[in-house]
Amino acid sequence: MNKGIGFIGLGHLGFPLAVNLMQAGYALRVYNRTASKAEPLVAQGAQRMDQPADTVTTGGIVMSIVWDDASLESVVTSPGFLERLGENGLHISMTTVSPEMAQKLADKHAQHGSTYIEAPIFGRPEAVAAKQLLVPFAGLQEGKDRAKPLLEAMGAQGIFDFGEEVGAATLVKLVGNFLIGSAAYSMWEAVGVAKKNGVDPKAMLNMLTSTLFSAPIYKSYGNLVTEGTTLSFEKAIPMKDLGLLKKTAQPVDAPTPVSDLLYDLMEKA
Amino acid sequence: MNKGIGFIGLGHLGFPLAVNLMQAGYALRVYNRTASKAEPLVAQGAQRMDQPADTVTTGGIVMSIVWDDASLESVVTSPGFLERLGENGLHISMTTVSPEMAQKLADKHAQHGSTYIEAPIFGRPEAVAAKQLLVPFAGLQEGKDRAKPLLEAMGAQGIFDFGEEVGAATLVKLVGNFLIGSAAYSMWEAVGVAKKNGVDPKAMLNMLTSTLFSAPIYKSYGNLVTEGTTLSFEKAIPMKDLGLLKKTAQPVDAPTPVSDLLYDLMEKA
Repeated sequence: MNKGIGFIGLGHLGFPLAVNLMQAGYALRVYNRTASKAEPLVAQGAQRMDQPADTVTTGGIVMSIVWDDASLESVVTSPGFLERLGENGLHISMTTVSPEMAQKLADKHAQHGSTYIEAPIFGRPEAVAAKQLLVPFAGLQEGKDRAKPLLEAMGAQGIFDFGEEVGAATLVKLVGNFLIGSAAYSMWEAVGVAKKNGVDPKAMLNMLTSTLFSAPIYKSYGNLVTEGTTLSFEKAIPMKDLGLLKKTAQPVDAPTPVSDLLYDLMEKA
Repeated sequence: MNKGIGFIGLGHLGFPLAVNLMQAGYALRVYNRTASKAEPLVAQGAQRMDQPADTVTTGGIVMSIVWDDASLESVVTSPGFLERLGENGLHISMTTVSPEMAQKLADKHAQHGSTYIEAPIFGRPEAVAAKQLLVPFAGLQEGKDRAKPLLEAMGAQGIFDFGEEVGAATLVKLVGNFLIGSAAYSMWEAVGVAKKNGVDPKAMLNMLTSTLFSAPIYKSYGNLVTEGTTLSFEKAIPMKDLGLLKKTAQPVDAPTPVSDLLYDLMEKA
């Protein structure tokens, strides 16, 4: 088994993901727009490449995690990327983009004989280190089968299959982030009312997050909101992801009053 | 130990609570505005009373669970109620009211030498039958000590102490209901976007409610929202409770944009 793969994007999630892969024995050819971020990986044996296409081998595997639709599209359409990936190449895309963009890029790959699967990741950098990531994925079965061991090596604790249609796993990621944002903001609002009425918010959330709301999200954000008086929304979820959910809902005429409100609140903050 | 107590309010929660108390060996003197609702209890040995005050004995215990501020106040101020409860009497109040009303009624009891403790209940009728109720309570310690065995007999799985200041446990109940409403509505919104985009909402919620949102509230309302296309808000939480939370937030100037939105959505529905 050839353990050489391409890895594009060494941001706050990408970097520790690449570390996990190297620790699992994969030889990485890495690319990042700000090249200096690759240095600690190069010191451990990774190869730094000058262009996204240079990380790719024909019929091989490339993983990417960049910021948004535009940055992912610019990777895929960069000179030589798709041509080089070619027949039987696999792109495991972990960026949270719009389902529409995911489908568009999957089509582009198919035109070149390669496979695009989407595997957006739930998890903060701490969860990468602890290998407690949750990964919904979708795309052609063969691609998912090849991707699975890499996702596991990278730190996936749970991998959830949403079928062969690209876009579905991305939507699940957007929905998950929306529910996180809604839960975090609602707790923040609740804690504000409690505090100002002289009720101990820690005791209150201790009761609720040990019973009705005994879920990881409520426990972690419960701690965050009782500690400070302001909630930094960007700490919870990126505003761009809420925007993508709204954008996905519009053409199908699905009502999104809570997403709209959260987006407005983030915009004002 | 005298196991005779007063019990006021035989609605969809009050009735099964009274049943649990009788099964635990308590002799109930019951009152309900619609008297006929008491019949099945009378058949099992409960005494039906014509007035709230008739359920009360001096120095004894009376429990109540009615609809709102006005109905609870009318019980407490009904002829002879406080006079008869008198010295060392205990009123265990389980209605979800405003913290303000709870404090006002606690004062009235104190003026007559009796104690008012608040013990609003989290739990649908199914949870009463399964004895899985969660009860935040607050009030004078002596009163809480006397109340505890009754709450346990009634079906409390967990009792959470919010101190001696009446109003605190009521606020916790209002906050809990708000968080339930927010979670339920957000899931409903998310499921709508998923369905209209051709993503299986059951698979999506199965993933989310078994991981990040692995809490009883998400599991139970997750099932509700994937089964139907409309969410009956009144099934989740009473609109009056959201109104009470908003009312509690106003004088202390705590922002409640999510509560406001949910209230408006319920009003329109």
